Amino acid sequence: MSLSLTILGCHSATPRINAHPTAQYLEINSRHFLIDCGEGTQRQMRKYKVGFSKINHIFISHLHGDHFFGLIGLISTFGILNREKKLCIYGPKGIKEIINLQLKYSKSRIKYELIFHELNSNKSELIYQDKKVEVYTIPLHHRIYTNGFLFKEKEKPRKLNMSMINQFEEIEICDYNNLKAGKDFLLSSGEVLKNSTLTFHPQKSLSYAYCSDTSYNEDIIEIIKGSDLLYHESTFLSDKEDLAAKTRHSTAKQAGEIARKAKVKKLILGHFSSRYDDTSLFKEEGKEIFPNTDIAQTGKVFSI
Amino acid sequence: MSLSLTILGCHSATPRINAHPTAQYLEINSRHFLIDCGEGTQRQMRKYKVGFSKINHIFISHLHGDHFFGLIGLISTFGILNREKKLCIYGPKGIKEIINLQLKYSKSRIKYELIFHELNSNKSELIYQDKKVEVYTIPLHHRIYTNGFLFKEKEKPRKLNMSMINQFEEIEICDYNNLKAGKDFLLSSGEVLKNSTLTFHPQKSLSYAYCSDTSYNEDIIEIIKGSDLLYHESTFLSDKEDLAAKTRHSTAKQAGEIARKAKVKKLILGHFSSRYDDTSLFKEEGKEIFPNTDIAQTGKVFSI
Repeated sequence: MSLSLTILGCHSATPRINAHPTAQYLEINSRHFLIDCGEGTQRQMRKYKVGFSKINHIFISHLHGDHFFGLIGLISTFGILNREKKLCIYGPKGIKEIINLQLKYSKSRIKYELIFHELNSNKSELIYQDKKVEVYTIPLHHRIYTNGFLFKEKEKPRKLNMSMINQFEEIEICDYNNLKAGKDFLLSSGEVLKNSTLTFHPQKSLSYAYCSDTSYNEDIIEIIKGSDLLYHESTFLSDKEDLAAKTRHSTAKQAGEIARKAKVKKLILGHFSSRYDDTSLFKEEGKEIFPNTDIAQTGKVFSI
Repeated sequence: MSLSLTILGCHSATPRINAHPTAQYLEINSRHFLIDCGEGTQRQMRKYKVGFSKINHIFISHLHGDHFFGLIGLISTFGILNREKKLCIYGPKGIKEIINLQLKYSKSRIKYELIFHELNSNKSELIYQDKKVEVYTIPLHHRIYTNGFLFKEKEKPRKLNMSMINQFEEIEICDYNNLKAGKDFLLSSGEVLKNSTLTFHPQKSLSYAYCSDTSYNEDIIEIIKGSDLLYHESTFLSDKEDLAAKTRHSTAKQAGEIARKAKVKKLILGHFSSRYDDTSLFKEEGKEIFPNTDIAQTGKVFSI
């Protein structure tokens, strides 16, 4: 399993006993990311057994409370638990000032390094990468500055075709990395062995696009095109399309249209307004436009 | 019923699935107060049916997260729910800056007036009063500036002794308020009727003292003397008395000693460290010093 998304909360701001504000835990190619952090997220992490020590990178879409009021609590708890590993926070300009002000007044001495990557660009940009994974912003249209995030596995190494390789004594283990990287092999005879004869296509690189909160915005289609999994907010159903436009949110139908036009593999709807008791209505509306639509539920895990 | 205290959370900072940080809802003489507001308090209020619209005054003891990280969420939710009544926040200097900074970045337009009463005195002071109730600070000793709060019913009016009053035609209904206030009555004959013959003693005025977080501090005894109910933190048991002193917290035994010396009627222990699975040990330890000791539990209601 290469990608696993756990929904820690998927409701909009108004609190209800069984509705949790937005937070998600993403595992992609052995990397562990927290996406948004509404109030109570640390409790949800405990409940759904997301190890605190796994989280080194937290991505915050925007500074509305239902997406980040739980961040200061999590940062403080990491301190109480004597965390030593550095923690990177990616979020809109202002997030550093808010967190640091609260740490100052509480006289919290956290032992670990807290690194803020403040965002203010309106263009998609690469904000994180390591050997295996990269993360891009997805500029969204909301009432305040907001980014979605595109998590992508980098192109994986080609797979060795050992039955072919074993036919050439000249190819040694130290050559394997070059072959995995796609290079041809030069025999001492001067003959060139094409890489495609010695390796197979690599395993497909997976991607996950997180888009919340946003109004209907076709600009994102190019960025999220072909994603394996798309989470797109649908605060409302189509009966409230006017309200969605006014509050810069989306309907399930609009989310479905984005998914269809971006040719993603699967759509997950979330960020449901508390006015709707029956969230299956979102699934129905989304499916009319984009058949492979599912809905987020607190505690649900989506795996590829 | 004149005083009712609902425990919305009574555990110290480290989160666990079934442990909620500090928050209390106090109803005293038809006044409704929220005391401290740890992360998730708004959910706890929903769960225990504390009407959001009843809360007009919130008292924050100190700026450690487990006592106030839920405040910004509650303030925001009041905004989302179109609250119009003003809301008064009493808490340490800095609380206004923290809340306003978050409202600024979220561009939250709350329609109601938010009034901050920032505290910085190290002496007990009257910070709230109306016709029936008054609230004093209780300066505590903790790692950062902290106040407890003493909620007191004002002296109630004397009760009319109607069987006596009815014997004097001269006493009219318009005189009753003077009698309730304790005044004697002058008959036209020149004779003075002593108030004590025309009225009974008033109903006892109740008081509730909230003391969290604090190290053992005998200075508070004079302020809380004779309170009907005392909530005193006991983060630790006596086996960790050194740690309590170091972190400026109290043990159950120390809380019991404060209750005994202040001659309160009843002691409630709370703010338990997550290291203790069995909170009944706190009750046992407290009872050894002060027999009428009980322990806080999330959702528990203490009424007088």
